[in-house]
Amino acid sequence: MTETPQYKLIYFNLRILGDPIRFILNYVNVPFEDVRIQTEGEWAAIKESTAWGKLPVLEIDGKHQLSQSHAISKYLGKKFNLDGVDELESAKCDEYVGVALDMRTQWRKYWFEKEDQPKRENAKTEFVTVIAPKYFNRFSKILEDNGGKYLVGAGLTWADFFVALFFELFEDTVDKNLLVPYPTLLQFKNNIYSIPQIKQAVENRPENEFWRS
Amino acid sequence: MTETPQYKLIYFNLRILGDPIRFILNYVNVPFEDVRIQTEGEWAAIKESTAWGKLPVLEIDGKHQLSQSHAISKYLGKKFNLDGVDELESAKCDEYVGVALDMRTQWRKYWFEKEDQPKRENAKTEFVTVIAPKYFNRFSKILEDNGGKYLVGAGLTWADFFVALFFELFEDTVDKNLLVPYPTLLQFKNNIYSIPQIKQAVENRPENEFWRS
Repeated sequence: MTETPQYKLIYFNLRILGDPIRFILNYVNVPFEDVRIQTEGEWAAIKESTAWGKLPVLEIDGKHQLSQSHAISKYLGKKFNLDGVDELESAKCDEYVGVALDMRTQWRKYWFEKEDQPKRENAKTEFVTVIAPKYFNRFSKILEDNGGKYLVGAGLTWADFFVALFFELFEDTVDKNLLVPYPTLLQFKNNIYSIPQIKQAVENRPENEFWRS
Repeated sequence: MTETPQYKLIYFNLRILGDPIRFILNYVNVPFEDVRIQTEGEWAAIKESTAWGKLPVLEIDGKHQLSQSHAISKYLGKKFNLDGVDELESAKCDEYVGVALDMRTQWRKYWFEKEDQPKRENAKTEFVTVIAPKYFNRFSKILEDNGGKYLVGAGLTWADFFVALFFELFEDTVDKNLLVPYPTLLQFKNNIYSIPQIKQAVENRPENEFWRS
């Protein structure tokens, strides 16, 4: 194996699109520079140096910049053998992460509706009563068909981190009991968060927001 | 090489999330069953048989189902050597496709706003004057830094198909002259659409909508 590259993750002091990446690197015990942009001024100072005016960005050996949380997580997942054992399992990781990102698109209709309070409440109700059950039932079935512990194949993948984190996001921002009717999902999430490296990463997480409000 | 699998693509009679997949299979001259759902009734009849109640779905050898346009395209791109020459190029494909999907999220604010006409017009203006230039300037720079012909590395990738198709989407649904101020992008798109297999695929495209309106 060649020497492990130097990684620098640049993101806000948030979890949502950063922790899927941080969890992978924490899990494989690869040290990385965890740059957490704290203020609008800090962000303004570097925004134009990023490829898309967006974060997260992963810098590799100070030479390459990679953008997009899905792309970065996939890259690291593959690098550290957390991307399934064959092409189909690799594709299943992408599928489940794509679905989690679709859920986030629905969640944003509630979370980013700040002006129109009735509209916000409606979007929240829609998320709780329609969106979440639709996805949660399907994720439950996938987990049950696969033995309950991991989403893809017989081992841990980067998709497990990504999806478990999004479950945490929805609990924290919508309803802390959102997963209670889905014991398979609760168990899955608890398993992921019980992995010693992940447990430690969560304990060491600097104070942060889940998402800017 | 093992025998080429049997592919069945199930999607609506639309381009947006289906043609990135169709273009890959057309390009590599791999025949596939191109199922195009035409009516609400047809869709209702199969919806619950899909993993997420969503299309596209790729069926492989009648045994495996894969969902999510990004995941399916990545899977086929890798399978047919259209995913770059190394891990970083493979990740760049994911990055650029992720960015195209982000643009689509912005575009939806205009395209799916059917009730509030002033809001629709505002969203369209925002897309034309703010969103599109932001992304188009960056895609132009990436292409220029890379020789102008392909997005990633020295050869064609599945990301070229995906991004070129999204450029066509925005021309067709927002403004047919949208790319005119970006000659690099026009040239790139024309190159992709001039590839003989793609030219033929476009000529043979059944009458379709770009997106349900």
